[in-house]
Amino acid sequence: MKFSTLLISFFISINAFTQDDSTILRNIYDMALLQGNGYEDLRSLCKDVGARITGSAEAEMAIEWGKAKMESYGFDNVRLQEIEVPHWERGTKEAGWIKLKDGELIKVNMLALGGSIGTNGVLEGELIEFKSLDLLREADRKDVEGKIVFINQPMDAKLINTFHAYGGCYPIRGNGAVEGSKLGAKAVIIRSLGLPVDPHPHTGSMRYADSVEKIPAAAISTMDANMLSDLLKDRKANFVMEMDCRSYPPVKSYNVIGEIKGTKYPKKIIVVGGHLDSWDTGEGAHDDGAGIIHSLEAFRILKELDYKPKHTLRVVFFMNEENGNMGGKSYASIANELKENHVAALESDRGGFTPRGFSCDGQVCHIDLMQKFEPLFEPYDLHVFEKGYGGVDIGPLHDYFPEIPLYGFVPDSQRYFDFHHAPSDVFENVNKRELELGCAAMASFIYLLDNTIEQAKNK
Amino acid sequence: MKFSTLLISFFISINAFTQDDSTILRNIYDMALLQGNGYEDLRSLCKDVGARITGSAEAEMAIEWGKAKMESYGFDNVRLQEIEVPHWERGTKEAGWIKLKDGELIKVNMLALGGSIGTNGVLEGELIEFKSLDLLREADRKDVEGKIVFINQPMDAKLINTFHAYGGCYPIRGNGAVEGSKLGAKAVIIRSLGLPVDPHPHTGSMRYADSVEKIPAAAISTMDANMLSDLLKDRKANFVMEMDCRSYPPVKSYNVIGEIKGTKYPKKIIVVGGHLDSWDTGEGAHDDGAGIIHSLEAFRILKELDYKPKHTLRVVFFMNEENGNMGGKSYASIANELKENHVAALESDRGGFTPRGFSCDGQVCHIDLMQKFEPLFEPYDLHVFEKGYGGVDIGPLHDYFPEIPLYGFVPDSQRYFDFHHAPSDVFENVNKRELELGCAAMASFIYLLDNTIEQAKNK
Repeated sequence: MKFSTLLISFFISINAFTQDDSTILRNIYDMALLQGNGYEDLRSLCKDVGARITGSAEAEMAIEWGKAKMESYGFDNVRLQEIEVPHWERGTKEAGWIKLKDGELIKVNMLALGGSIGTNGVLEGELIEFKSLDLLREADRKDVEGKIVFINQPMDAKLINTFHAYGGCYPIRGNGAVEGSKLGAKAVIIRSLGLPVDPHPHTGSMRYADSVEKIPAAAISTMDANMLSDLLKDRKANFVMEMDCRSYPPVKSYNVIGEIKGTKYPKKIIVVGGHLDSWDTGEGAHDDGAGIIHSLEAFRILKELDYKPKHTLRVVFFMNEENGNMGGKSYASIANELKENHVAALESDRGGFTPRGFSCDGQVCHIDLMQKFEPLFEPYDLHVFEKGYGGVDIGPLHDYFPEIPLYGFVPDSQRYFDFHHAPSDVFENVNKRELELGCAAMASFIYLLDNTIEQAKNK
Repeated sequence: MKFSTLLISFFISINAFTQDDSTILRNIYDMALLQGNGYEDLRSLCKDVGARITGSAEAEMAIEWGKAKMESYGFDNVRLQEIEVPHWERGTKEAGWIKLKDGELIKVNMLALGGSIGTNGVLEGELIEFKSLDLLREADRKDVEGKIVFINQPMDAKLINTFHAYGGCYPIRGNGAVEGSKLGAKAVIIRSLGLPVDPHPHTGSMRYADSVEKIPAAAISTMDANMLSDLLKDRKANFVMEMDCRSYPPVKSYNVIGEIKGTKYPKKIIVVGGHLDSWDTGEGAHDDGAGIIHSLEAFRILKELDYKPKHTLRVVFFMNEENGNMGGKSYASIANELKENHVAALESDRGGFTPRGFSCDGQVCHIDLMQKFEPLFEPYDLHVFEKGYGGVDIGPLHDYFPEIPLYGFVPDSQRYFDFHHAPSDVFENVNKRELELGCAAMASFIYLLDNTIEQAKNK
């Protein structure tokens, strides 16, 4: 051994990684970028299947699509895991108008929020605007009763991480109808949770409370919200809406599961996934088609490179993340019943943008472990390796296995809330290279986890 | 002073920055993201002016636009700097066909390379494909003579920094015609220097040599290049082309210059800019509309915040970067004649994408200085602070002032070569938030340079 080689070995050993590791990462990236299937698979999921809300025919097609893909790539033990899921449908009627006092009508771009009741014909009421959910909560019942509440709080554009801006407005969508109903409102419309001022309404989940009457809830585009707010500055206006969305009894659905069998610890599982369902508008391309493809393609690449993992690598396409998370909850509960031994979980559900790194919801030793990966990712421009959120689908694992680390893939967040839950979340808005880099980052992270997770112990 | 404050002061002082610096950066970002003019100004440059190749009416309009913008924002000493620039025009005829032996014609998407001669009517010749410029150089004259050379080397997608992939193919566009002509080729067509396989041809500059005959040169789309290469695997084909592009005598044009006068060192100049000209296809939105807007908006924000710089901050909209760099060369030469004291230069010419950091073509002390900025940029997700390229426009400053640092703004590179020099480089392909974050990063960097550049001395 030459001295220079010795020196290299020394530096490598203190990082607990070998030169082989960086070669394997390079091979993973080469395959993703030069012989990738990810972009074509996403096209297929978006165009051959389409938007796939839980309980829809498209969701069933997506399950078949996912199982067939896993089988075609030779994953082990491909199967469907039966779960029960809520079933809500938008129906066929959905329209909203601003009606001025002289009878002038202005049609707006509107989407019912997921879970909302319909309007049972045409619903009309005088509009009252609130700039935040707190201002609605503090309002007098006499000012709100019998009216249609318009909650118009923009996402805070100055927050650099757009998920923080989303977090600031998320309760408006979730609780707006309950808060409006408490004060006797007829319906609630909200400013879409999207960052750009554009014509696309953004849907998303909302809740009712047993204690108050259910009232219809919808989102209008940010462009319409600005226009409406301007109108309301110097005049009164009514809102007219019709929606025949409704909830049906729960139905049977499935998580889709595949594996690459572990060679050293076959009973120990590293689970990786995204969610297969999407909202019923757009094509669920970033949310979470990208996460499905990141996971699928990561496994395909590892198989293609003939990688024999130490642990059993399990990929799960979770169903129903968007309106119930029954896929994630059921998966965790079944894992517990079966006394499965999960050692780590990794989720991608933040879009198909340029990778920035990974976050970890886990113990100090698991965050430390992840931070040791950083030098290996440096050639690929990943630099975020920090404590943070794992993902909605893998979250329930902590109810049963609080000790396991939940890792989340972190792409650039700047464009995510242009598309999230909107008609614009289509294949054409996903960049091929950005998607492929995400697939490679995911495959690399899985490889590194598989080789090091046994070392992660708190002192 | 409380101990905690003392502690904070201590940590700040070792970084040579104050708490004020981070507050000022926050104010800059708030203004860019909440009250930004950048996106609307880019819309105006792209839509009200349009593509603006040197010597065109649009280039003249862009000069007027730039001067008016600087004046409207109250910059000091706004003026035009007269320069002489080359003048090439695409003309009105530009078409290419693959002609198969049975006479079947396939029309391709083609753009003449900038500087190419026309075909003087219809030009037809048998195609011969080379997979690289080196393979063309090594070819026998008898195989090439009288033919149309097709150079079909894809950009290397596995390189993470797409500028490196561009660098690998750049000589094909620049020297393909000379190398083809040396072997008696009639014309050269090249695979577009773009990463995606799509229908958009990418133009760009090319050169002739006095020693060999000038032959026409054009780029076809990557999609057409793949199709043509497939066809040529098992058959011969001709290429038919018509182009009436031509060069005219040099014309007068202008760099557009504005300033914010320095308070402490008014004679010392920090120069900042991008290039105002673009290719004559698309709208020059990323290349380099974004760089113009980054610079313009950075100065507007600093003025709006009533910042009184120590040094004179000078913004330059350089003309003719794309096909001659006469703006950059003339600026440097005039600065030398006037014995101006430039202390640093900063350029943005890599698109309007999410900022990743800055690079420095300078001495060790200048790189060190920039790296000290990193903690202040951490809240804004910038992490690249390394030795590297400044920019084409500011490059010639080193011919006269080799000691000054040339800094380059570094955005995410993944999507740049989707649009570069192509019809798809339009306003719609620039994301508002990504552009605004670039404006804020530029303003912040200028502010930090202004406050620290005097400290940068090699030991």
